[in-house]
Amino acid sequence: MSQQMPFKELMKVLGLGAVAFVLGVEGLNWLMRRLRDSRGPLKEVLFFPSPQVCVEHLFIRHKHFPCACPLPHGVETSFSRLLVHLLSARMSLDLCVFSFSHMELSRAILLLHKRGVVVRVVTDRDYMTITGSQIGVLRKAGICVRHEMSSAVHMHHKFALVDGKKLITGSLNWTLTAVQSNKENVMVTEEPELVGPYQQEFQKLWEANDPANHKPQCTNGQLNIKTCKDR
Amino acid sequence: MSQQMPFKELMKVLGLGAVAFVLGVEGLNWLMRRLRDSRGPLKEVLFFPSPQVCVEHLFIRHKHFPCACPLPHGVETSFSRLLVHLLSARMSLDLCVFSFSHMELSRAILLLHKRGVVVRVVTDRDYMTITGSQIGVLRKAGICVRHEMSSAVHMHHKFALVDGKKLITGSLNWTLTAVQSNKENVMVTEEPELVGPYQQEFQKLWEANDPANHKPQCTNGQLNIKTCKDR
Repeated sequence: MSQQMPFKELMKVLGLGAVAFVLGVEGLNWLMRRLRDSRGPLKEVLFFPSPQVCVEHLFIRHKHFPCACPLPHGVETSFSRLLVHLLSARMSLDLCVFSFSHMELSRAILLLHKRGVVVRVVTDRDYMTITGSQIGVLRKAGICVRHEMSSAVHMHHKFALVDGKKLITGSLNWTLTAVQSNKENVMVTEEPELVGPYQQEFQKLWEANDPANHKPQCTNGQLNIKTCKDR
Repeated sequence: MSQQMPFKELMKVLGLGAVAFVLGVEGLNWLMRRLRDSRGPLKEVLFFPSPQVCVEHLFIRHKHFPCACPLPHGVETSFSRLLVHLLSARMSLDLCVFSFSHMELSRAILLLHKRGVVVRVVTDRDYMTITGSQIGVLRKAGICVRHEMSSAVHMHHKFALVDGKKLITGSLNWTLTAVQSNKENVMVTEEPELVGPYQQEFQKLWEANDPANHKPQCTNGQLNIKTCKDR
């Protein structure tokens, strides 16, 4: 014989259950946070060359049909991890790179720019104009690029700052040869003691190479100075 | 009127004083260790170009007369910090560097070798023979050098492992231009999560480029294979 629970009693049990559920979830969250904190900030090391795999799914969200390209699918590589970290930018991407001719990396930067992420690029004066360089493509898309002003100096860094808190740095230039052939390393970290100095260095280079602070140079009657607004 | 303390009493006071002193020093040590641990493992970032200063004192211990060279003395720079970290090696130095022509860095490596530090070098096949390369100098001194075996691939890393626990890595090739002119970065860390992968990478490259595992190539009637014993 079943006894019916009075309405008030039922509400009390349900209320207590809800409180217990919320507390349980909060407790679990707290435990997860503690566990994450005990491991410290993100530290990941990627080595290259990286095998060629399909990375289409990283560019196209909510794709309802599988990619038909002949490359292996569903495989995680150093290059796909690099793309994941770059595409995780929500607010800003500060990029300081010597040589940039990799098409997929260029596609990633253009996609971030399209999504409204503020992208700033500092690059080398000589290498930005070599065949295959993507610097012109970025500028045409409206991305602000500055280059090392001195012709006697190479801007040889290869680092990126994602949302001002994730540092991607190493030996890897953003070229196809570097990604697919060379022995290279890239380190990804959110360690504030490491991220901070690179942020300061980026800001220093950004300001030092502001074309507005440099005298325009006249070449064949034309000014070859470019401001950010000119791209 | 002075009262003389009995000998036994004096010894007791002195003994207690000594114990208090030792405990104090130990306590201070413990506090310093706790303070250091709370900051975590070493993390240092160096940016280049580095101004030219005298680094003679880093090479010659217990020098009783000041160096007479015209460079500034007693100044700490990114380059002097890099030297300090390299010269801190007591057991081993594993070096993986694309281009190596810097004379002072070569001097540091030769000094470590002379001190009995086990030095192993992996370098690029093409760049090891360019004008000014120090690779030949290291080999002649008896340091074991291996190079990337494939001619189609660049060994583009620029990292060093000091005593297997301190990682020095970045964009900096070991050349005078890189140190004195270029915009470059070097990170020094003892973070095990970062040091570990680089150690594995070094070991992988060391074994993969063991000349004993590669077929000798005959050039003009001479074998151009070198084993470690041949330097």
